[in-house]
Amino acid sequence: MTTAPEPAIGELRNLLQERLVTGRGDRQAHAQSESHFRAMPPDAVAYPQTTAEVQKIAEICNRHRCPLVGWGTGTSLEGQALAAHGGITVDFSRMNKVLHLRTEDFRATVQPGVTREQLNRELRATGLFFPVDPGADASLGGMASTRASGTTAVRYGTMRDNVMALEVVLADGRVIRTGSQARKSSAGYDLTALMVGAEGTLGLITELTLRLHGQPEAVSAAVCAFADMQGAVDAVIATIQSGIPMARIEFVDAATVRAVNAASGAGLPEQPHLLVEFHGSPAAVAEQAEGMGEIAAEFGGAGFQWSDREEDRRKLWDMRHKAYYACLALRPGARALVTDICVPISALAEAVCETQADIAASILEGPILGHVGDGNFHSVLLVDPENGAEMAAAQDLAARMAERALRLGGTITGEHGVGMGKLGYMAAEHGPGWAVMGDLKRALDPNGILNPGKLLPGD
Amino acid sequence: MTTAPEPAIGELRNLLQERLVTGRGDRQAHAQSESHFRAMPPDAVAYPQTTAEVQKIAEICNRHRCPLVGWGTGTSLEGQALAAHGGITVDFSRMNKVLHLRTEDFRATVQPGVTREQLNRELRATGLFFPVDPGADASLGGMASTRASGTTAVRYGTMRDNVMALEVVLADGRVIRTGSQARKSSAGYDLTALMVGAEGTLGLITELTLRLHGQPEAVSAAVCAFADMQGAVDAVIATIQSGIPMARIEFVDAATVRAVNAASGAGLPEQPHLLVEFHGSPAAVAEQAEGMGEIAAEFGGAGFQWSDREEDRRKLWDMRHKAYYACLALRPGARALVTDICVPISALAEAVCETQADIAASILEGPILGHVGDGNFHSVLLVDPENGAEMAAAQDLAARMAERALRLGGTITGEHGVGMGKLGYMAAEHGPGWAVMGDLKRALDPNGILNPGKLLPGD
Repeated sequence: MTTAPEPAIGELRNLLQERLVTGRGDRQAHAQSESHFRAMPPDAVAYPQTTAEVQKIAEICNRHRCPLVGWGTGTSLEGQALAAHGGITVDFSRMNKVLHLRTEDFRATVQPGVTREQLNRELRATGLFFPVDPGADASLGGMASTRASGTTAVRYGTMRDNVMALEVVLADGRVIRTGSQARKSSAGYDLTALMVGAEGTLGLITELTLRLHGQPEAVSAAVCAFADMQGAVDAVIATIQSGIPMARIEFVDAATVRAVNAASGAGLPEQPHLLVEFHGSPAAVAEQAEGMGEIAAEFGGAGFQWSDREEDRRKLWDMRHKAYYACLALRPGARALVTDICVPISALAEAVCETQADIAASILEGPILGHVGDGNFHSVLLVDPENGAEMAAAQDLAARMAERALRLGGTITGEHGVGMGKLGYMAAEHGPGWAVMGDLKRALDPNGILNPGKLLPGD
Repeated sequence: MTTAPEPAIGELRNLLQERLVTGRGDRQAHAQSESHFRAMPPDAVAYPQTTAEVQKIAEICNRHRCPLVGWGTGTSLEGQALAAHGGITVDFSRMNKVLHLRTEDFRATVQPGVTREQLNRELRATGLFFPVDPGADASLGGMASTRASGTTAVRYGTMRDNVMALEVVLADGRVIRTGSQARKSSAGYDLTALMVGAEGTLGLITELTLRLHGQPEAVSAAVCAFADMQGAVDAVIATIQSGIPMARIEFVDAATVRAVNAASGAGLPEQPHLLVEFHGSPAAVAEQAEGMGEIAAEFGGAGFQWSDREEDRRKLWDMRHKAYYACLALRPGARALVTDICVPISALAEAVCETQADIAASILEGPILGHVGDGNFHSVLLVDPENGAEMAAAQDLAARMAERALRLGGTITGEHGVGMGKLGYMAAEHGPGWAVMGDLKRALDPNGILNPGKLLPGD
């Protein structure tokens, strides 16, 4: 694709005035990700305030064959928001309003720049909340675009399950509304599901209607150390198969605990741990905690201390959410290549144990943690991106994890998406289905202006 | 589109031998639906036994521009399985094997001709079940293709939520595998969701991996009469908003009760009723039934008699499942135009009451019933398809229901799909999104051989 940013930039400046920025600072701020990718600055950053402006931006860029990349908070991990081919980054931070709450229908309609924490603050008085929680305080438009999930997906589902309707600007400037305010529909192709997880390659999301959930009457959370990883993972499998409805169930290995202890003085024993939370009525939560405790004991768990105090729970999940940064801090100056495989629950122990052995045999440190209730886990491979041997070792470990996931019937990415980082494994996962994704892309974006270089097969 | 069946039929006969049938009986058997559409026979019926055969059928038909229509059990209600442009009907009744049970992962992989009752019979000893229940003993391939749901969707979701992976034969004979055996994935476009509800216009489903659920420890069901429709619907809304997790909650109006009484001697009072079921632990189910009883009493409910005996429950749901046929029997020889709108819960009372008034003011009988926990309800408009005035009155009532659904933020079809019957409302629901569906269709089926005349805008 040929990038022709200059004529587009001229027209965009007429449209957006000072909200079209070409200064080095802004371009550099949008060139970085939280992961290991090199900086890829756009030629300009646009800050639209309305759908009509996004529509005009698309029309202009489509006419000039100029790449368009959506930007929420820049917290994606596979380079999704980087301007791999230059062009215009559309920063949605000024489209950050909660437009409409329909509490009686458990629905909120928001602009794409609203972050999940912002939404939950606005919901606090309603008795409802939005559960999807990838850790970072990401924008909801970005979370939809990468089909994010996180710690609560085991109970409340991923963005796939919680995005009910969208407004989307297509490459040619058409604006479509997908889905409805009803709970279900059979009215034709599921365009909502097609846009969720498309990483901005099929359209730019300008409005989302999200499914809300009732704040649980009671919440109980606890952490439990295990003698070994196999025991911890087997306890998760047994809990799921027993039908105990967990709201969160997270695994951290001994290396992650070491990082967390160093970062926050948590003082946990340096062993594998499970972090668990239950939501429900007080009686149900107590029953579930008891059932989980029995299972943990069977598999070498040291016993849970349950807490229903919000302060304790906040500390627990804050520790979990910051575990990624704590791992990074194990090696000052290092960057992370974060893997993200997801396998059937029955294959989880095999997948985790093989991965840990692989990392132990490598030259790298790589703590393992994850949303094991979904069969999804990560290794945070610590690398110096300038060190060729380290990058090669990390890429090799990641490739072996991807192969392992596919061999076990799973997927190369549970929640981080494809971006640029997983392109190399898409053919292996999808076979001819990957070309079908390319067919769909060309049908909606024949000029290839939307987030080129991500998710799809090259020409 | 020009249909050229003869050369295709010649090649198909070489491929399938006696499993390619052109006799009048078979063609007529595949020309009928359970709804009001006129007979539309295909030119031939193919009975493939393997994916490889379906693949060759697609290649042959694509080469000869010959229409291809999938057929499961023929129970769809909007003419989805009728050969509107002639061509070949692919009857999947000989691809009816449960291929693989992964009980530890709550997964079953089946061929498309397996029916939901067949699958549940095979699951009986496992402690698991497949919950989606549209009433008819439909094929799972057909249920996926129409994004079916039914009485249990309020708790377990629709086919959208319970189809995890597919094998699909595309128009040009390519075979793709979508999804994985893992619980979630962010690996590119959600091709599974795109195929579910596509009504065979994007591909023919040759294998499905379905999500299974644990058989509930305890089940309790009951029926409750209400003084008026508004009270019954308001009781549903209050129950949902209180967070009581219903497994089923169904509404039938007085006319439906009259039909059911006449058909089965149920002897229920001829008033609006709610039919409710809870799944869970014995304690949870008892607690939920108590909460529901309190709410019903507030809204003029006559009191529930709860039963946890399987025989009583079977009788109750059998009565509900046969309500459609009982309504048809109100007027011997009549056919039904069945409407299917779905609205936000907050608008449900308004939608149902307006609809009932509309029908009362018309020349037609039209019992109302539905899955009100989803905001989804049907009127069974009884017509003589040969009577122009009656058909016009039915179409007018249906059009007014569709407009009402859209005005209230809902959808023209909650679970029956588009087929031919809802084509006229698609532009109003989707605006330019309908043309986008057409773009996607042309990308995957440029010759338009897959189920022409359904779901999509005309050329």
